[in-house]
Amino acid sequence: VDAKSLRLYRWYYSRICQWGLGLTIAVVLLLAFVERPSSLSVSSDPRRRAPPWEPPCGFTESIEMVCLAIFTLDLAVKSYLIGWEEFRKSKWLICYMVVIVASVIDWMLTISMDCEEKLRVRRLIRPFFLLQNSSLMKKTLKCIKRTLPEIASVILLLALHLCLFTMIGMLLFAKTEDPEKNGEWELYFRDLPHSLTSLLVLLTTANNPDVMIPAYSLNRGYSIFFICFSVIGTYFLMNLLTAIIYNQFRGYLLMSVQTSIIRRRLGIRAAFQILSCHGARRAAAESVKVDAVLEVMSRVQMKSYYRVAIVKVRANTRPAACHTHTTRGSAQGRTLIMRQNESCKFHPPSPQYDSVLLQKLQRIFGHYYFTIVGNAVALVNVMCICTVLVLNSDKSIAEKDDYYMEVINCCFIFYYLLEMSLKIFAFGWRGYLSYRNNVFDGLLTILLLALQIIVFATYRFPYSQRDPHGLLSLWELVRLINMLIVFRFLRIIPDIKLMTLVASTLLDLVKNLRAFAGVLVVVYYMFAVFGIWLFEGAITPPPTHMSVLSNSSLENITSNFSMECGTYEQLGYWPNNFNDFAAAIILLYNVMVVNNWQAFMEAYSRYTSPWAKVYFVSWWLTSSVMWVNLFVALILENFIYKWDRCHSCSVIDVERTR
Amino acid sequence: VDAKSLRLYRWYYSRICQWGLGLTIAVVLLLAFVERPSSLSVSSDPRRRAPPWEPPCGFTESIEMVCLAIFTLDLAVKSYLIGWEEFRKSKWLICYMVVIVASVIDWMLTISMDCEEKLRVRRLIRPFFLLQNSSLMKKTLKCIKRTLPEIASVILLLALHLCLFTMIGMLLFAKTEDPEKNGEWELYFRDLPHSLTSLLVLLTTANNPDVMIPAYSLNRGYSIFFICFSVIGTYFLMNLLTAIIYNQFRGYLLMSVQTSIIRRRLGIRAAFQILSCHGARRAAAESVKVDAVLEVMSRVQMKSYYRVAIVKVRANTRPAACHTHTTRGSAQGRTLIMRQNESCKFHPPSPQYDSVLLQKLQRIFGHYYFTIVGNAVALVNVMCICTVLVLNSDKSIAEKDDYYMEVINCCFIFYYLLEMSLKIFAFGWRGYLSYRNNVFDGLLTILLLALQIIVFATYRFPYSQRDPHGLLSLWELVRLINMLIVFRFLRIIPDIKLMTLVASTLLDLVKNLRAFAGVLVVVYYMFAVFGIWLFEGAITPPPTHMSVLSNSSLENITSNFSMECGTYEQLGYWPNNFNDFAAAIILLYNVMVVNNWQAFMEAYSRYTSPWAKVYFVSWWLTSSVMWVNLFVALILENFIYKWDRCHSCSVIDVERTR
Repeated sequence: VDAKSLRLYRWYYSRICQWGLGLTIAVVLLLAFVERPSSLSVSSDPRRRAPPWEPPCGFTESIEMVCLAIFTLDLAVKSYLIGWEEFRKSKWLICYMVVIVASVIDWMLTISMDCEEKLRVRRLIRPFFLLQNSSLMKKTLKCIKRTLPEIASVILLLALHLCLFTMIGMLLFAKTEDPEKNGEWELYFRDLPHSLTSLLVLLTTANNPDVMIPAYSLNRGYSIFFICFSVIGTYFLMNLLTAIIYNQFRGYLLMSVQTSIIRRRLGIRAAFQILSCHGARRAAAESVKVDAVLEVMSRVQMKSYYRVAIVKVRANTRPAACHTHTTRGSAQGRTLIMRQNESCKFHPPSPQYDSVLLQKLQRIFGHYYFTIVGNAVALVNVMCICTVLVLNSDKSIAEKDDYYMEVINCCFIFYYLLEMSLKIFAFGWRGYLSYRNNVFDGLLTILLLALQIIVFATYRFPYSQRDPHGLLSLWELVRLINMLIVFRFLRIIPDIKLMTLVASTLLDLVKNLRAFAGVLVVVYYMFAVFGIWLFEGAITPPPTHMSVLSNSSLENITSNFSMECGTYEQLGYWPNNFNDFAAAIILLYNVMVVNNWQAFMEAYSRYTSPWAKVYFVSWWLTSSVMWVNLFVALILENFIYKWDRCHSCSVIDVERTR
Repeated sequence: VDAKSLRLYRWYYSRICQWGLGLTIAVVLLLAFVERPSSLSVSSDPRRRAPPWEPPCGFTESIEMVCLAIFTLDLAVKSYLIGWEEFRKSKWLICYMVVIVASVIDWMLTISMDCEEKLRVRRLIRPFFLLQNSSLMKKTLKCIKRTLPEIASVILLLALHLCLFTMIGMLLFAKTEDPEKNGEWELYFRDLPHSLTSLLVLLTTANNPDVMIPAYSLNRGYSIFFICFSVIGTYFLMNLLTAIIYNQFRGYLLMSVQTSIIRRRLGIRAAFQILSCHGARRAAAESVKVDAVLEVMSRVQMKSYYRVAIVKVRANTRPAACHTHTTRGSAQGRTLIMRQNESCKFHPPSPQYDSVLLQKLQRIFGHYYFTIVGNAVALVNVMCICTVLVLNSDKSIAEKDDYYMEVINCCFIFYYLLEMSLKIFAFGWRGYLSYRNNVFDGLLTILLLALQIIVFATYRFPYSQRDPHGLLSLWELVRLINMLIVFRFLRIIPDIKLMTLVASTLLDLVKNLRAFAGVLVVVYYMFAVFGIWLFEGAITPPPTHMSVLSNSSLENITSNFSMECGTYEQLGYWPNNFNDFAAAIILLYNVMVVNNWQAFMEAYSRYTSPWAKVYFVSWWLTSSVMWVNLFVALILENFIYKWDRCHSCSVIDVERTR
């Protein structure tokens, strides 16, 4: 360990460098939206979309090359820092190297073929850059890998369940001589693939009442078959899967936090061990001045409550103000504090006024009830908007009278401004900003004010000259203001006690979700790229009906077309396709939500080949079965962790605007 | 406490008496299927159903009166046993009395009106009899009641979320001047009730891609609104509800088991305290003979492993074979054993044969591999059936050649019989029956044999004279045999290690589920009765199309009818109605499964009044939100309990047929 590599290490792990790396990864991933087939069109509907802007050959490629160069540099620095021995052992780094090399080779192929090649392998392996950069994501992957055998057993049980019921179903609903009674056979149990698909879709409940209707309408008894299937498959086995995944992730959060704390503490201990060894040679009494320590403290990047805690510890050990001791104490203090992390939050004191009247006013406006009055006013405002909406719901823009709406909004915005300034008067600037919901409130109020000023500037007072040729018409502006007011109404959440825990769990969850979101992005990315390869342009809508359809969609669909109900074509799912990256992601999202996914599966297997079902089923397994369950496990984990901590610690600091 | 009331107590809590009471409750509840509107028809489809058999007036009423008399007797005995003081304190008993009185009054009203009255209040309060009879159900109810405030907070948050998004949605998708762009407004955001319903249904994902299609096809950006709504509402808030409910039920199972054990132990302690006090007066040395104790033991009703444990304890304390000591020890032993309950299961020893050949054969057939061979044969059989099914899927019954199928099945059944007898030879009768999967196996084999004999008896060997006029045609019989063979294939589950835990969790779950199933029955019953009151005969299908529809359903639906796709009428949901109790239950089940529930809601609010939505939404909240989450919580609880116990105890007795 020499000074140069230490400096390199510090520089590499500095915030700027890591941000730059994150940005590069984001840029590489976002390239997929711009690359051919480009997603830069307003609509993804093939009937409406104009030919999108395609980037010239070499544009995305040059950006990509820069990114790849940065990754190569990153790899070089990383491998230099950890040394050759460690590099050989680390599978992730070797994979990183392989991925970069493969990308560069693929890039050169693209350039040599003038961007005309169809298959871009490097798009598929791009998400790897995201994966390898986050240790939490690697940990999550490991955890998922550990869970796989258990999940496999349930999936096996599910498959067995599906197969047995398929056979029983085919035996039950065989073709009979009476054509009246063949409804079930004809629609859902025609042959083995049909029956399997029907029951697989029933497992996701996406065709629930439909699949049983023909048989059920003949005889009540047949419903028992379907209910048994759903209860065992959907309710028992699927939920068991949730249980298994949760069981594996139980304690995962706590453990990962603990191990990272322990590792950091060990590192600090070891560092001070070395320091004190050096120090022992130089005689022990060489103490550091308190002021110097304070100065160091103020320049080190750490959160404010750490600093306060360290200063406190220092106060206790002041007589022997040895640097090592203090900072060692501070290290322990830091780990101690880290646990109560959120439970200590300091609000700056309110400003002191001399006048009695001002003090009285301060007490009034700083009171908790003042916030409640503000909430009530916000509620009244939302109700106003709601009433106007209900009254105006049938009118089109031209018929609407925005004048009253605008006046009402103006009054309310004035009140909000007043409330904000009074609160600032009562708490002072810093006190006002130290509450999270005040920040939220203030930001929205300022935004509203800005919009209102724009309205005034453009349309003047009596609103007589209506000018729809501006950037945004008056109606658009009023609509935006209304939306912001509705959004601002969320400020009531922290004031309802019951909701506080729930809302704070949600906020915490978002923090802890990063690793999962990363894995999700990786999975979505890979499936979307793969889907574009397989199904790009597979479905083309009937071109003749384009003008008819756009006129009045509803009647035409049901009368003119002779399309079967419930199919992709009848439902008009045209904008859900694999023609570009953005559309592919929305399609995958729709399949993840599960409802009506059989329409997509059926359409793509009809337009391409029956094997397209494999793609959709595997996406269903990955997203809906695996990922949603992981998500449920994470929510359970977070909520219970939060609940236990909240009930074990005696002092709960409920953040409240007094 | 005198001898008479003690005898009454023993008699009341005897198994026969409690079974009788349970039977009475079942009879009272099942009356709903027979009462007017009776469910005794083959189909619930109003287009197909013949007028069902209506019970004569007085038939169900007399049965009900007998049941009510039994309940009155039950109430009298119970209140006599616990005494007047306790009776006044127990709310459940007072309610019980009130419910009986109300039922009797309502019954008399019915009789006086010659069974013509429309509103039978007593049908609605009948499920109370089920509730009050089970202490576990009462406990579950209490637990649910405790959870309600937390659930309410999430529901409130959900409502807020829904309202805010509805307003933003109405602002976004307002009516514009361009009729092409009004698709979203026209279909889903026409006015406030429409918008609320659309987004509420989207919360259940039941109209997921459809609701966003008109807007999404215009502009990709609109999809963000719907995705945000679904992600926050469906994924975050709904799963948070699961977390909250699970958090409340965590430890519920363990705690309820523990308290019941502690209570029982306390009771036994107290009983022996009294006994020993009596005994002290009569001089302590009056010991009981060991044989007498043994005889008592053998006559007391307890499970075999308790008995073995008590005999063991007795062996240790034999010198001082004092009755109180022994049984006190046994009481402790019992509570000890109760915990390891399942981990000790004794298999009777295999029979001893003298001949070396027989011993060798015994070793072969008792070996674990022999079971595996059996499984392989079962698999081959299922594959055969599957192949025949695939080959024959297009043929109707007359074209099918059942001869080969029958011969193949015959061979396999012969093999199964052979396997069974060889196993009995190897393990002995008792040894064979001590394994659960052998019992399953044996039962199915005997059933198959019986069916095969019936086939032989009816159709003789060459199957030349085909006689479709019998009770069951040959095809039906073969079909039944095939189904049983497929069902028998489930025997492989315990032999796959990974599945054993999962399957045993499922089995355990069914045991622990009784209380929940009871609550579910109560909820279903009440909603079904209520639904019949409100919506009986509300929807009548178009009578003219009856003959057309039955001919070939598919083409007619899409071409002749001018019905909108996705509605109740187009989907042919006629058999799902509230015209009788059984149909109402199936309809409620279909709404619980959530998929396409908006079709029911929309149809009933169209045919009756818009307020019908309230009924469906409240059922959705009770069943799909509350009950399904309770179920998930129960599964999580059970699995984690099982998992922890399985990993904490060192000796796992995996039941295995060697």
